[in-house]
Amino acid sequence: MATMQEVATHAGVSIATVSFVVNGTKRVSPATRERVTAAMTELGFRNNVVARALASKRTRIIALLFPALEHRLGGTALTFFMSAASRASDLGYHLILWPVDTGPDELRDLLSGGLVDGVVLMEVKMHDTRIDRLAELRVPFVAIGRTADVDDLPFVDIDFETTVEEGLDYLTGLGHERIGLVIEDLEGTSMAGYGPHVRSERTYRDSMARRGLEPVVVFCGPGAAGGRQAATDLLAADPAMTATMIMKDDSAFGLVRGLLAEGRRVPDDFSVLSLSSSTEAGATSEPALTTMNAPGHELGTLAVEALIERLDGKAGQDAPLPHVLLPCILHEAGSTAAAPAR
Amino acid sequence: MATMQEVATHAGVSIATVSFVVNGTKRVSPATRERVTAAMTELGFRNNVVARALASKRTRIIALLFPALEHRLGGTALTFFMSAASRASDLGYHLILWPVDTGPDELRDLLSGGLVDGVVLMEVKMHDTRIDRLAELRVPFVAIGRTADVDDLPFVDIDFETTVEEGLDYLTGLGHERIGLVIEDLEGTSMAGYGPHVRSERTYRDSMARRGLEPVVVFCGPGAAGGRQAATDLLAADPAMTATMIMKDDSAFGLVRGLLAEGRRVPDDFSVLSLSSSTEAGATSEPALTTMNAPGHELGTLAVEALIERLDGKAGQDAPLPHVLLPCILHEAGSTAAAPAR
Repeated sequence: MATMQEVATHAGVSIATVSFVVNGTKRVSPATRERVTAAMTELGFRNNVVARALASKRTRIIALLFPALEHRLGGTALTFFMSAASRASDLGYHLILWPVDTGPDELRDLLSGGLVDGVVLMEVKMHDTRIDRLAELRVPFVAIGRTADVDDLPFVDIDFETTVEEGLDYLTGLGHERIGLVIEDLEGTSMAGYGPHVRSERTYRDSMARRGLEPVVVFCGPGAAGGRQAATDLLAADPAMTATMIMKDDSAFGLVRGLLAEGRRVPDDFSVLSLSSSTEAGATSEPALTTMNAPGHELGTLAVEALIERLDGKAGQDAPLPHVLLPCILHEAGSTAAAPAR
Repeated sequence: MATMQEVATHAGVSIATVSFVVNGTKRVSPATRERVTAAMTELGFRNNVVARALASKRTRIIALLFPALEHRLGGTALTFFMSAASRASDLGYHLILWPVDTGPDELRDLLSGGLVDGVVLMEVKMHDTRIDRLAELRVPFVAIGRTADVDDLPFVDIDFETTVEEGLDYLTGLGHERIGLVIEDLEGTSMAGYGPHVRSERTYRDSMARRGLEPVVVFCGPGAAGGRQAATDLLAADPAMTATMIMKDDSAFGLVRGLLAEGRRVPDDFSVLSLSSSTEAGATSEPALTTMNAPGHELGTLAVEALIERLDGKAGQDAPLPHVLLPCILHEAGSTAAAPAR
């Protein structure tokens, strides 16, 4: 394996210049950089992962653990992945995509090899044995999502409570009082107890009660067909309903069509607000859906930043654990309007 | 750093047993594996990446290069990512997600560090300077996608030619003769010359000509609004048109709505066939769209397999380069029907 000195000699530059190029610690002219990297390639100079691992027992690799059950992940997951990888790259780290079954034993096997410095954990359940195992293994980690008890948990998450509260504020501000909630039916699947659903439903029920309003929750099957059925179910539960929130992109359009089939025009007779979605997803429908946009990019970025701060020791031993909550942001479009006159 | 012998002593097993656990070369009882991994954790035993890199100059890490322009990647990209990562994991490799600008210089800088054994390249253009640079750097790689000249290129790709041909076979089989094509408008963007679009449009034009039919290509803006405009444009170009193919999930539903606004019911008066899509994406519309499903899972898997075969030397020095083409698979749903009687 070539040394840094050999690279410097070969490229006709100082060893300091090679170090600048290798570590990105100082700007070097493009021509010089080109000479140095050409020399590194030619001599087979191996830098980062191996050298760093030997010197510091660190690899500057972090793992993004995702469940191999791929059908669970929607468009926001892609944004998570890409934002996390980009931010890691900016900060001089590499992000490995790590498919795992949720078993804590497999986690232990994977992490005992010392390949990764830390872990970003996705798709957290209210009670998640992986968290206990990570703590036990003393592997630094940050969760995207929250367990029921977050005191000892470093996490970033969508603030579903604030999102649902603000969604209800928005709809009641338009004069709606009979407001439903449509969420995915996860009963009996491995994702039962999935945090986003549990929190959203609970907040909706509590907030409706506090507002003196009657909650109606409908559990929805896949695709447009599921959404159409949800429309029927909502109106069966309350024929006078004038608005609903839905947290399920793939069924939102079917819901609008189902409402139309039941004689409710959107938004004149009935408002639809799509939660934890995106402007792009809303724009595939007609009318374009008013959405509360998931902060996928921000969360991917912040999760990696929080983890790397812990890895680099910048956070300090006694620093509080990162507890970052970001609400979805309202984007008004064509599926919401003032409640119809009674 | 603890040695394998120390781990064996600590766990009260033979060094061979530790090796079986570490390298996964032989089945070990869960209880024994538990003891060994506990000892590895406690002693801080570091195995794979560092040891392997020192011993073999290989890290068993492969990089999936994706463009940082995230808005370009749709649902199929998520399937690519996850399938590639899962297959790499099965084969004892790790997949790093590597965001890069398309500049060949940045590629050289990244790869000169010796972190990765090989590369999977995404979003390939008809003329792609990254390919030349990878060949020059002698980094083993496999492209997902094809350049114009594929003689020297190891790749896996969707067979857009066969997909479009089979789509036209299907529609003409239903009696349609006046058939349009709707594709995304990429003119003036960094993705102009994007292979899938160039190939699909060219195949469509050639095939229509060969069938003695008149081609109509419409370039489509974003979302439902773009699809609605595309409906208007199709019928302006040929008011007697009875079917179209569209390669743009986010506008497919808007196209159906636009056709309805122009007095064409789908599928009774007009058939819509969505290319390079998925059953799930089609099911979000109503009627559910007939789709030609992109083999995203298969391509992610095959790309990684082809790369690792080259890395592990199983392919042999003189083995032909992998040239894998998979067509999209037709999934019939509710948006296509026999051409209306004239």
